[in-house]
Amino acid sequence: MLQYLKTKEEREAFIDKYDNFLFDCDGVLWEGNRMFDGVRESMKLLREKGKHVCFVTNNSTKSRKSYLKKFEDFGIEAKIEEIFTSAFATATYLKNVLKFPTDKKVYIIGMKGIKEELALEGIQSCGAEEDSGLFDNDPVPDDKDVGAVVVGLDTQVNYKKYSKGFAYLTRNPGCYFIVTNEDSTFPQHGSFYPGAGAIAAPLITALDRRPDAVLGKPALNMLEAIFAEYKIDPSKTVMIGDRLNTDIEFGLNGGIDTLCVLTGVTTKDELLSEENKVKSTYYINGFGDFGQK
Amino acid sequence: MLQYLKTKEEREAFIDKYDNFLFDCDGVLWEGNRMFDGVRESMKLLREKGKHVCFVTNNSTKSRKSYLKKFEDFGIEAKIEEIFTSAFATATYLKNVLKFPTDKKVYIIGMKGIKEELALEGIQSCGAEEDSGLFDNDPVPDDKDVGAVVVGLDTQVNYKKYSKGFAYLTRNPGCYFIVTNEDSTFPQHGSFYPGAGAIAAPLITALDRRPDAVLGKPALNMLEAIFAEYKIDPSKTVMIGDRLNTDIEFGLNGGIDTLCVLTGVTTKDELLSEENKVKSTYYINGFGDFGQK
Repeated sequence: MLQYLKTKEEREAFIDKYDNFLFDCDGVLWEGNRMFDGVRESMKLLREKGKHVCFVTNNSTKSRKSYLKKFEDFGIEAKIEEIFTSAFATATYLKNVLKFPTDKKVYIIGMKGIKEELALEGIQSCGAEEDSGLFDNDPVPDDKDVGAVVVGLDTQVNYKKYSKGFAYLTRNPGCYFIVTNEDSTFPQHGSFYPGAGAIAAPLITALDRRPDAVLGKPALNMLEAIFAEYKIDPSKTVMIGDRLNTDIEFGLNGGIDTLCVLTGVTTKDELLSEENKVKSTYYINGFGDFGQK
Repeated sequence: MLQYLKTKEEREAFIDKYDNFLFDCDGVLWEGNRMFDGVRESMKLLREKGKHVCFVTNNSTKSRKSYLKKFEDFGIEAKIEEIFTSAFATATYLKNVLKFPTDKKVYIIGMKGIKEELALEGIQSCGAEEDSGLFDNDPVPDDKDVGAVVVGLDTQVNYKKYSKGFAYLTRNPGCYFIVTNEDSTFPQHGSFYPGAGAIAAPLITALDRRPDAVLGKPALNMLEAIFAEYKIDPSKTVMIGDRLNTDIEFGLNGGIDTLCVLTGVTTKDELLSEENKVKSTYYINGFGDFGQK
């Protein structure tokens, strides 16, 4: 069932089988600011064969526009319509699903990407960088205009943001609690760092309740948005990722085939172990292997 | 079973029944920097009757020495031996139970109180105020000398501290993960703010495991230390507190009688509701009522 794409023939057959390639980025194409070997060649091959590609990332720190720049810097072809971030998914979810009122605003515990995507959907916001200073221990004043608290990865998180987020969620009736994604960790500098799921944990603990919505993989919101946007055939679509509990589960949840790469979080031992119940359809050492001559 | 101390006679009988009065402080004696009415008179009454008092607090931000100053400022008699904080409990637990090696150090996500109590027990530490600046996104270097990560309430918490704590706990074999107390919130400025349990949640989420030890109420470590220290008779001892899931459960866990005051977290409706399974032996509007003429 779990097939290793060992030979050039197997890899070619894989590419020929699908029309649509959904990519996780961190851990598949690059790690932080370092692109993996062969990625550019592999991606070029997909383009030459006229494949449809889509980049699906739980990274909420960058807007799609700044994310696009990362592709340009690495010399990988990409269009803004091909990029789905959890920040973008959060903004569209607030607008289209929750019909978030235009006279209310969102309090952000997170970075630029969320603010920018909300603004593009015409949603007002506060928090984020404005509150990145130290906590002065002053009382948190009421702000009845806050109708949602959105939490994503925030490397400038502090007690002020947690206090404000908690205050709005407990004081403002009907205030939504939205988490961009729940990755507990993410790879960086050759190691792991606490992820958006860890950043959201203090509010979940203090409120003693789950978020009203979580947008990123393995939740299906983004996959449904992609299917709707492109009107693509799920049977001709494959999800490529490095994390079993986000990327691969995301594909399985959505009923599409999956390819697990070993350049990120998941090791070969973990993937192949008896205990692992989240099996991808295929695995390969790295996405760069496709471009090998 | 749950008796309201309504009349002066009932309150006097209560005081006569016990020799040892264990107090939670925040929410019972004061809220933040505001002492409740009648507290000074009530405490004086206990002293005049030769009662044994002990202040048991989950507050880890202050050392016992600075905590004592708070009593002095409020004009309440107290001795340092009568104060048990979760920071003190953490320090004695590391020293006496874990036999923490003198050549190792503790990484602190928390405030002054923890550092001071560790130093008094001869335990080296780092982190805390040293790391209160913003996160520069540099890699976290190894530090093999860190043998424990201690987390308490930290109003200067930031991503740097979470990254370092997570790094030591995943990289250093046998590194202990200790949480001073797990209060999810605490009362301040007439409202609630995220507590030590919330501050510790990102590490629990990122590590996907529980702490090796939690020291504060309702865990029994402090109660056992108090019993050992004073050699007191549990049947002549009562725990006075405002929180059902910490103070009252702490007393119930330890098999002693309990008095719930309504000046803090717990409302009368919550205490008396059918759903509430944590019933105190008694309740009273406020501890200050004992001193009423």
